[in-house]
Amino acid sequence: MIKAGSRIRPQEMGVLAGVGLTSCPVVQKPRIGIISTGDEIVEPGRVPGPGQVRDINSYAVAGMVEEAGGQAVQYGIVQDEFAQLERVMKQAVEETDIVVVSGGSSVGARDVTYAVINSLGKPGVLVHGVSVKPGKPTILGVVGGKAVIGLPGHPASAMVLADIFLVPLIKAYSGLGFTPPDRRIIRAVMSRSMASASGRTDYIRVAVRRTGDRYIAEPVLGKSGLISTMVRADGVVVIPMAKEGLEAGEEVEVILF
Amino acid sequence: MIKAGSRIRPQEMGVLAGVGLTSCPVVQKPRIGIISTGDEIVEPGRVPGPGQVRDINSYAVAGMVEEAGGQAVQYGIVQDEFAQLERVMKQAVEETDIVVVSGGSSVGARDVTYAVINSLGKPGVLVHGVSVKPGKPTILGVVGGKAVIGLPGHPASAMVLADIFLVPLIKAYSGLGFTPPDRRIIRAVMSRSMASASGRTDYIRVAVRRTGDRYIAEPVLGKSGLISTMVRADGVVVIPMAKEGLEAGEEVEVILF
Repeated sequence: MIKAGSRIRPQEMGVLAGVGLTSCPVVQKPRIGIISTGDEIVEPGRVPGPGQVRDINSYAVAGMVEEAGGQAVQYGIVQDEFAQLERVMKQAVEETDIVVVSGGSSVGARDVTYAVINSLGKPGVLVHGVSVKPGKPTILGVVGGKAVIGLPGHPASAMVLADIFLVPLIKAYSGLGFTPPDRRIIRAVMSRSMASASGRTDYIRVAVRRTGDRYIAEPVLGKSGLISTMVRADGVVVIPMAKEGLEAGEEVEVILF
Repeated sequence: MIKAGSRIRPQEMGVLAGVGLTSCPVVQKPRIGIISTGDEIVEPGRVPGPGQVRDINSYAVAGMVEEAGGQAVQYGIVQDEFAQLERVMKQAVEETDIVVVSGGSSVGARDVTYAVINSLGKPGVLVHGVSVKPGKPTILGVVGGKAVIGLPGHPASAMVLADIFLVPLIKAYSGLGFTPPDRRIIRAVMSRSMASASGRTDYIRVAVRRTGDRYIAEPVLGKSGLISTMVRADGVVVIPMAKEGLEAGEEVEVILF
């Protein structure tokens, strides 16, 4: 009647009611531990001093987690210091199913995250750096059977990378496959050409508008540190590593946020 | 920074955190009162006697309401009897923003719903019957400034009509416009031809599968009373009133559920 692994949509609720099933077992929502690192990061409720910025990633990532069907567990802001980060990450790995550490954007901060993941257990860090723009400084690891993801500190990069690595993991932990049709993918036409450096996969943020019966994808330009580029964007267009760019008028697939 | 009327997505949460706004005013979720009518309808927890069926629509419609961003308020099952339905609908109109009454499928039951809506206040019933298949026996009315929708009793019809009239109303009450891109619309190719009687708008339930870079829409055949047709379907294809049908291989827009 309803296949195992299906999402309970309104019609499945109707079917269950129709056959008298007033309750049914479901997969528990995975718990995602979220940690922000960086000596310069302060809570949103505080006024940042010179050189400080408010924590954006904890909240943007938590929103993505909830939207993807996970349960966000916030572990707050941790300084770029080995012992402190190790203590908080150890707790997060014990208490949740997937741990996400974002930032700091400095090389030193990334080194601390890298070292802590390796110190917590085997196999530790599996991937350090991905050929994706924006988002190169990404870490993928496994500690005690739990997935650990180190996201870049720049908010827009962090969101693009969370969409690539974290969201599919949450769906998989929720018992959901990638069921077609994927309502996040629409076909659109590029409003302008975009160059892309070869040797990496480029994620171009785009705003989408509908004209007649087709969609136009307009690149949103701006630094990956600017969360405002994500507010203006409706999704991303992927330029594969081997492709040198996109032509104006070219048909593309947009992955909607 | 964020336009009024925008949905707070993960990136908007990030922006708010970044500027130190730890709370912000939002539009309250509209409350949708849900009533099932019909002498033959019983609660899902009960074993139906001869000629009885369990209440499907209250639960399928509640699921649609929550998914669309509304808050479902259940008023349960009411017999096809004027005084009883009037009492419950009066309470629902007072307590909620939009009232939805589904079924009974019999002509007599529809007459009771019609009469009660007209008795509760001006202007009462505005539309009685729509040129849509499935879903002809639909009532649209306004009582005391509140929208009242009478949905057909057949579950699949009720869901298709709720998607046409109720979901857009919930979005409007939530302060959201129809912002492009509409992620519910994908382009697909019909797997087979479908005839359509002229003089009404046909909503063809379809299952969608992806092959290569395009989607194939396969009609799901079955009576509008069968909620199982909705479980197998991923969305609907609309055949406009003036069009006599769809050809196999024709490109169509699928509105995903």
